[in-house]
Amino acid sequence: MSAPARAGARAVRAPSGQLHEIQAPVRERLDEVAAELQRVVVADFPMIEAITGHLLSMKGKMFRPTLTLLASAVEGRPEPRAIPLAAVVELVHLATLVHDDSVDHSTLRRGMPTINALFTHQISVIMGDFLYSRAVVELVRVGDMAPLQVLAHATNQMTIGEMRQLTALDALRFSEDDYDALIHAKTASLLSAACEIGAIAGAAPHRQALARYGLQLGMAFQIVDDLLDYTADASTTGKPTGLDLREHKVTLPLIHALRHVRAPGRAVVERLFAESEPDDELIANVIGIVEEYGGLDYARSRGERFAEEAADALSKLPDSRATAALRDAIVYVMERTQ
Amino acid sequence: MSAPARAGARAVRAPSGQLHEIQAPVRERLDEVAAELQRVVVADFPMIEAITGHLLSMKGKMFRPTLTLLASAVEGRPEPRAIPLAAVVELVHLATLVHDDSVDHSTLRRGMPTINALFTHQISVIMGDFLYSRAVVELVRVGDMAPLQVLAHATNQMTIGEMRQLTALDALRFSEDDYDALIHAKTASLLSAACEIGAIAGAAPHRQALARYGLQLGMAFQIVDDLLDYTADASTTGKPTGLDLREHKVTLPLIHALRHVRAPGRAVVERLFAESEPDDELIANVIGIVEEYGGLDYARSRGERFAEEAADALSKLPDSRATAALRDAIVYVMERTQ
Repeated sequence: MSAPARAGARAVRAPSGQLHEIQAPVRERLDEVAAELQRVVVADFPMIEAITGHLLSMKGKMFRPTLTLLASAVEGRPEPRAIPLAAVVELVHLATLVHDDSVDHSTLRRGMPTINALFTHQISVIMGDFLYSRAVVELVRVGDMAPLQVLAHATNQMTIGEMRQLTALDALRFSEDDYDALIHAKTASLLSAACEIGAIAGAAPHRQALARYGLQLGMAFQIVDDLLDYTADASTTGKPTGLDLREHKVTLPLIHALRHVRAPGRAVVERLFAESEPDDELIANVIGIVEEYGGLDYARSRGERFAEEAADALSKLPDSRATAALRDAIVYVMERTQ
Repeated sequence: MSAPARAGARAVRAPSGQLHEIQAPVRERLDEVAAELQRVVVADFPMIEAITGHLLSMKGKMFRPTLTLLASAVEGRPEPRAIPLAAVVELVHLATLVHDDSVDHSTLRRGMPTINALFTHQISVIMGDFLYSRAVVELVRVGDMAPLQVLAHATNQMTIGEMRQLTALDALRFSEDDYDALIHAKTASLLSAACEIGAIAGAAPHRQALARYGLQLGMAFQIVDDLLDYTADASTTGKPTGLDLREHKVTLPLIHALRHVRAPGRAVVERLFAESEPDDELIANVIGIVEEYGGLDYARSRGERFAEEAADALSKLPDSRATAALRDAIVYVMERTQ
């Protein structure tokens, strides 16, 4: 965690990885974003409140809109349109969650049933389409082409990333470059867009720096996410979930380990990928192999490099509360445990 | 067919319902639209040519881009951007087809296997998202907010229409107003947008008239589509397909018949809607009942009223080849047999 710590030293106070502290400088506006989301989503569907109510309960931590609001405030002059823009960023995020769950046939997200599980697959597909097209309607209402351009590009990138993942033929030949391209498209592009759009609405001179910050933060975010799949305890079992392995998803820890593992270990990994429903023991074995061959350390250090790059991108921003909070967001991303 | 015939009398020549004649005034530009589509869809996915190739083969008759190009040409001064805009309209149409097939689990469209059937459900969802977000990217590239506003609104309407259909609880209480709202959202909104966007790119003074024309044409289009389900012979069986009834979809002919049918007939209809897989005989019985109680005639006459409205919307446009072709498009819509 050297990078965020160093970066944090630039701020007046010690860096904090607590989300509520990161959100403190934009707390009130974040509530307005939530109200805006409520308005946008519910307005059109009085007949299916059950769905929209559930959807809004999925909105979770509002990390992306937080980034948008903070980015818009780094010069102390956030524009009012940062609020609808932040809501649109979250709408697009929700749309992708709904479609991802539908594509993966996921039944749970953050411990809650997915739209997919609660209603039908059909409703998931159309609900995602509704959310995305509604986001575009709202962007048009804001009336500036620049945020539209950023978000359209990011969402298109995200679909290309998903498609890459779906059409990857031989999982075990998935390279580090493939992985970088995938997480760039599927995660970093939206975090980058969230920050760049914020910059457009109040900190235009820092647009490029904030876009770069969001991109690096997004890369770190996804690497940590993928690491947690190897290291975090599932609350019920106390064992790592290994869900990605179960679903034959190859992420950075395994990619690195496969470069060094010897024949017997490789054979175990191959066995897991050949079984349509690998059991817990096999998954635990592969997690052990990945750890033994340095996969977790390697992924961690790459995550930290991205965190350093994110901190570096902030280095020329004005020293404001918002800038300090963006620096804290790096700590938050790196220290997440779930 | 009185309406289009009367409308056609305004043109120099007799009205034609032949698509190739309707497309004649914009033939070359339509080829450019096809090339543009090819460029847009293929560029990003070299790795999945199989999918994009198949997708482009779905593009079919290019009716919507034809409307865009014709609308842009009614004053004889179509702008070059009408071409990318027409391509975007078709992209959005393709996106909705891909998701509709995924939602309906359809395996065939126009006699060809769907993306859904050929590849996977997952790929359908993401491919639809790709197409729609790519359409927004292209619209942003064209750089004018007006077409974006029109298309964003139309696509959002379409999702609301689909959602209405999916969440309709009691099919047999589906009213004519419900039906109008549904076909407005799911079909007429995009045809209206296609025409309005064309007007924006070359015939701005007629924007409202062309939007109205497209809307009325779209209503007629969907009514005829729904009628064909009752009347057109499936090529293999020589009997009406009755696919909507098989899937418990209530359209205008049945809505009308249900207002007049007596108890025994109603019981037959209710039996069909209670059976998850009604057999051919039951479907044929219900088709007979719908015909007996005037459902087909009623739907036909409502379709003709919309056709008259569409012709009326054209009445103040300049008398150009493009205007005549738009008038012919009404005949084409009303005379379709498949």
